[in-house]
Amino acid sequence: MSRVWNFSAGPAALPEEVLRQAADEMLDWQGSGMGVMEMSHRGKEFTSIAVQAEADLRELLAVPADYRILFMQGGAIAANAIIPMNLIGGKRVADYVVTGAWSQKSQKEARKYAEVNIAATSEASDFTTVPPMADWKLSADPAYLFTCTNETISGVEYPFEPDLARIGRGEVPVVADMSSHILSRVIDVSKYGLIFGGAQKNIGPAGLTIVIVREDLLGRAMPHCPAAFDFRIVAENASMYNTPPTYGIYIAGLVFQWIKRQGGVAALEARNVAKAKLLYGFLDGSGFYENRVDPACRSRMNVPFFLKDESLNDAFLAESKAAGLTQLKGHKSVGGMRASIYNAMPLAGVQALVDFMRDFAARKA
Amino acid sequence: MSRVWNFSAGPAALPEEVLRQAADEMLDWQGSGMGVMEMSHRGKEFTSIAVQAEADLRELLAVPADYRILFMQGGAIAANAIIPMNLIGGKRVADYVVTGAWSQKSQKEARKYAEVNIAATSEASDFTTVPPMADWKLSADPAYLFTCTNETISGVEYPFEPDLARIGRGEVPVVADMSSHILSRVIDVSKYGLIFGGAQKNIGPAGLTIVIVREDLLGRAMPHCPAAFDFRIVAENASMYNTPPTYGIYIAGLVFQWIKRQGGVAALEARNVAKAKLLYGFLDGSGFYENRVDPACRSRMNVPFFLKDESLNDAFLAESKAAGLTQLKGHKSVGGMRASIYNAMPLAGVQALVDFMRDFAARKA
Repeated sequence: MSRVWNFSAGPAALPEEVLRQAADEMLDWQGSGMGVMEMSHRGKEFTSIAVQAEADLRELLAVPADYRILFMQGGAIAANAIIPMNLIGGKRVADYVVTGAWSQKSQKEARKYAEVNIAATSEASDFTTVPPMADWKLSADPAYLFTCTNETISGVEYPFEPDLARIGRGEVPVVADMSSHILSRVIDVSKYGLIFGGAQKNIGPAGLTIVIVREDLLGRAMPHCPAAFDFRIVAENASMYNTPPTYGIYIAGLVFQWIKRQGGVAALEARNVAKAKLLYGFLDGSGFYENRVDPACRSRMNVPFFLKDESLNDAFLAESKAAGLTQLKGHKSVGGMRASIYNAMPLAGVQALVDFMRDFAARKA
Repeated sequence: MSRVWNFSAGPAALPEEVLRQAADEMLDWQGSGMGVMEMSHRGKEFTSIAVQAEADLRELLAVPADYRILFMQGGAIAANAIIPMNLIGGKRVADYVVTGAWSQKSQKEARKYAEVNIAATSEASDFTTVPPMADWKLSADPAYLFTCTNETISGVEYPFEPDLARIGRGEVPVVADMSSHILSRVIDVSKYGLIFGGAQKNIGPAGLTIVIVREDLLGRAMPHCPAAFDFRIVAENASMYNTPPTYGIYIAGLVFQWIKRQGGVAALEARNVAKAKLLYGFLDGSGFYENRVDPACRSRMNVPFFLKDESLNDAFLAESKAAGLTQLKGHKSVGGMRASIYNAMPLAGVQALVDFMRDFAARKA
């Protein structure tokens, strides 16, 4: 077996330790005589797995006691509908900050359920920056303000937490799609009304959605909201109103334990800063490659880059793959290349990429 | 490692061959250098897995060319909302046949989206039978007629296919929740408008929902239907409008290949008939245990039973568990015991259960 350096934007590389443990336990979890996939979600074995996963996530993100953690399904695309269905309540308008393809998609879907006010957008810059909070134009009484704090496709990450108290609107709950950078940096959960993310980038397998929601936002669902996606019902049933994606929760739990062994989120953040510094530093100094994102808003997780001579793209992809560096092709809407360097990508993987890129440039320049 | 005989109603036992292959490939799928959980859903590796899984399921159930197979999320409970949202179209009423807890839950959820007509119900018999089609009272112009063709909780299975042409109403599409018996018996897909099932009973891990839908039923979704759950959008995007539960699709695909190696659905049906005959035959002849379901409608998959002396329940559960026979406790709404004997449970497992039960009865009678 030879593992590659996998730069997929998601589903993405997982820590080898996690995969080894999952393989070892596939037919027999801790002497139970069953694999995790085969367990009743209501049995004591799986209940202990789910309870531990939730407790570990709560510890890792220092989630306050008045927030509920929900394990759901559908990913961020389903959440784009589920969130307005749950949070519009008696209000008319929801505010959206649009910083890339994901928040753009979110606001479009929300229009099925509410009037949408675009509080700010960086579309004019081709989604290469995040508009400063001082320029956000909130509506008078929005149900919530939606943000996507890391845009996977354009590689833009908020360099600040969207704490609306700083612009005198602390009463408006902030919703944040953190799919592609949750657990990669220290955050203050208390600044948000709701945080969500598909697991398939920084946590675990596709098919699991993590929702962290302040309790006072429960119980506002529209009559048309499916019961399985009503946050209040999911919370009251400890994420077991419908059968949850049990294996995904188990893998996520193993990832949470792995993060704790690494020293927690702060330790991973330091590692992520070092990885990003190495890669962006190389790109900027290369003369051969470039990243086009506002340096203040560059994502530590998703690094899109271009060869200045794009006629070399195919050669770059073929040769990098041959060197064991895979899934580097950029998103079709952006072009070029993209290296996603989530928590599970070690510095050694980024170093291998930089070494290859330096060599490729030297050979082709 | 010592495996138990696992009678869980779901998530449920999987074939050992499937689990062994999954464990072997966890870090490196077929020389790709990645595990399946780590693959982009749009890459050629995962695409080949999904295409093969769909083709194998199509072959196993002889799905006609004008039906689409969708891999979705949310399980049957989410489907209870997603189906009316997709199929009501311009109509006002949906018909439901209620034969147990699951179809009861389905019709309640549907009332959010449509007027519901209960075409038939076996509630008066405490859900121990299936009303004959001759007694079904369809409404004048329903969008569809909903059935749950195997009720996991009460252990009731349709002894016939709900082919409405037999009562002169062939124009009404039949929807069937087959979560707990799909692939356990030969069916004629062409008699249905839509077949669906959560995977976690007879197919694979929780978090994957299989939908088989006739193409003319696509494109009718309500304006409030989330895009991720609009059958037309899911079909047009080959189940990749949102990131699908990739690992679940992979495991399902391994199960489909396992079924093919067993000789297909007909071969499994013969095995399931033999398993059910053994267990029901023993129950009926025991004098110590009983099954209370109409003999014509007994499920081959889920066998609820009672000890005539219920004061022995705790001893039965403790001693069966000690003998390596697990998850036999009945659903709380029914009480007693339940043995779920899906495709992955071999005759040897049922024989082990019967041997234990005979011995237990001899010792306690």
